[in-house]
Amino acid sequence: MKIGEIGEFGLLDKLGLYKRQFANGWIGPGDDCAVIPFCNSNLSISTDLLVEDVHFRRSTASALDIGYKALAVNLSDLASMGARPLGFVMGAAFPRDLEVGWVSEMLEGLDQCGEEFGCPLVGGDTSRSDKITLSITVFGESGGKREGWNPVMRSGANPGDVVMLTGFTGESGAGLAALEKGANKSGDSTCATLLLRHLRPTPRIIFGVALAQSELATSMIDLSDGMILDATHIANRSGVGIVLDSERVSLSEALRAGCEGLGLNPLELALTGGEDYELLFTVHPGAVERVIALGERHELRVTAIGEVKNGSEVEVTGAGAKYIKNSKGYDHFKGGG
Amino acid sequence: MKIGEIGEFGLLDKLGLYKRQFANGWIGPGDDCAVIPFCNSNLSISTDLLVEDVHFRRSTASALDIGYKALAVNLSDLASMGARPLGFVMGAAFPRDLEVGWVSEMLEGLDQCGEEFGCPLVGGDTSRSDKITLSITVFGESGGKREGWNPVMRSGANPGDVVMLTGFTGESGAGLAALEKGANKSGDSTCATLLLRHLRPTPRIIFGVALAQSELATSMIDLSDGMILDATHIANRSGVGIVLDSERVSLSEALRAGCEGLGLNPLELALTGGEDYELLFTVHPGAVERVIALGERHELRVTAIGEVKNGSEVEVTGAGAKYIKNSKGYDHFKGGG
Repeated sequence: MKIGEIGEFGLLDKLGLYKRQFANGWIGPGDDCAVIPFCNSNLSISTDLLVEDVHFRRSTASALDIGYKALAVNLSDLASMGARPLGFVMGAAFPRDLEVGWVSEMLEGLDQCGEEFGCPLVGGDTSRSDKITLSITVFGESGGKREGWNPVMRSGANPGDVVMLTGFTGESGAGLAALEKGANKSGDSTCATLLLRHLRPTPRIIFGVALAQSELATSMIDLSDGMILDATHIANRSGVGIVLDSERVSLSEALRAGCEGLGLNPLELALTGGEDYELLFTVHPGAVERVIALGERHELRVTAIGEVKNGSEVEVTGAGAKYIKNSKGYDHFKGGG
Repeated sequence: MKIGEIGEFGLLDKLGLYKRQFANGWIGPGDDCAVIPFCNSNLSISTDLLVEDVHFRRSTASALDIGYKALAVNLSDLASMGARPLGFVMGAAFPRDLEVGWVSEMLEGLDQCGEEFGCPLVGGDTSRSDKITLSITVFGESGGKREGWNPVMRSGANPGDVVMLTGFTGESGAGLAALEKGANKSGDSTCATLLLRHLRPTPRIIFGVALAQSELATSMIDLSDGMILDATHIANRSGVGIVLDSERVSLSEALRAGCEGLGLNPLELALTGGEDYELLFTVHPGAVERVIALGERHELRVTAIGEVKNGSEVEVTGAGAKYIKNSKGYDHFKGGG
């Protein structure tokens, strides 16, 4: 049996990685970060492997943006577990005929993101390959005995909890669509906003850490696959159902304006577009006001968009209900490109 | 300017990674591990990126061996800083037409090594690529305030120190040569020994940690590029010269016998062959006997093979002097294959 026949999720299922048992306090494969209890604290780790023409294209993204985003998406995983960044390492493979200047610029992008979020490059390894391949592994610290709080996992949602979201979704997906139609950052300001959201996502580190410290969130995930699919990950890991009310999902001005120009439906993108790197989380109904206030303190819009129920499925109510069928996610081994 | 023109070391030099400044107690790029002081301890990290047909070939190594070795070589980096393993993450990219069974076996190899050295897989990421690409990042703990000792770096060798070595070198290089001539593990016992040393290297974790805890070593490195070249790394980072006495380098029975069959010179392999994953380290002359005794307690042969001097070069004395010119190491971007 070949990998292409069973796909990425089939492979992971076959390997049984998510079923492995770990000692108390450890978090193994299947969440946004691994967690190793270490010296009265928690070492949190996330890793991503990015391959040219699978995850990025040199034709549509600068080396600077590719570097920035490579680190940002890993930091977003730390954010979703409430981990403060410590540092990162990179494994990088390059073709021999790649310009040294490309690598310098990519490193500059990594450094920009690292400086912004306090996460320096501490080590790495280089090799040769036909396609540029970047493996980023970030480390962070999240709670533990010393601080008296625990990382927020995907698995803690309870029936009755409210589903909440930071920021706006769909903008990254609209930015990608604009890029594919040949847009660039020197276009109009709407277009520039959308491209920036796609090329330079902002990991919600500060809010994610504050929320975890507050112990108000029962589960959390960062949005990489699209809101509906990522909600499914919470539902599956928590053993609950989730109802997302599409009427309560806010659409940004930039998303509306951009979608008009692109001929796309903004609500569809907000529900199914990938790579927003906002945080989707669940809280006890009594905590909603406090969480909104916490967002305000961090100048971050936080909205309640659904609720957790008994069951195992994700439902969408309102005008967006019809888009649930489009939310299949991307399978690296089955997908095109 | 293209990467292939300046090579791997030229690229790293150009990027200035080794010149970066870090806060007190941090160890950045340029040693075997990065170290981040964390909660009164030291988090030590090493990462390796392995690409099919650059680092391994499916035609000469089983998936089981490839997995085992991928983790073992990273653990060897931990050993050389005196770090106890905590866990590892893996980024893995596979071609679509790869058999699922290959991946299962590779994972089994990783697990075998992880169980042997107490280093479980805690997370990962998968993607698609034309060549199998494995990125392993290991974490360990080495000393720190809590334990009152510091990781052993490449940079602490002092003139007058004695250069010491664990085990025997050259066997892995002989194993590789045998593999390239079509040998397999079902061959005679000499051949099997050499292949095993190449395909399943033993990271010297227990001795490395004990040596670091003893605070007897002034510098340490694990042998991946070959003894002469790795000694050069210590010399460069410590700002010293090193004299290796080739007459004191022990040649194992398996190496001698294997080289006879292969038409190779055992001393040349012992001095320049790569991937032995033994530890090369320096100690104050007054500590030599204690270090040999420490080796005996761990059933590991430890020999004194040279000394540290003022200067900046590595010299070889005795019959092996002529092999110093062959010790150029492997440059991924310039090398063939």
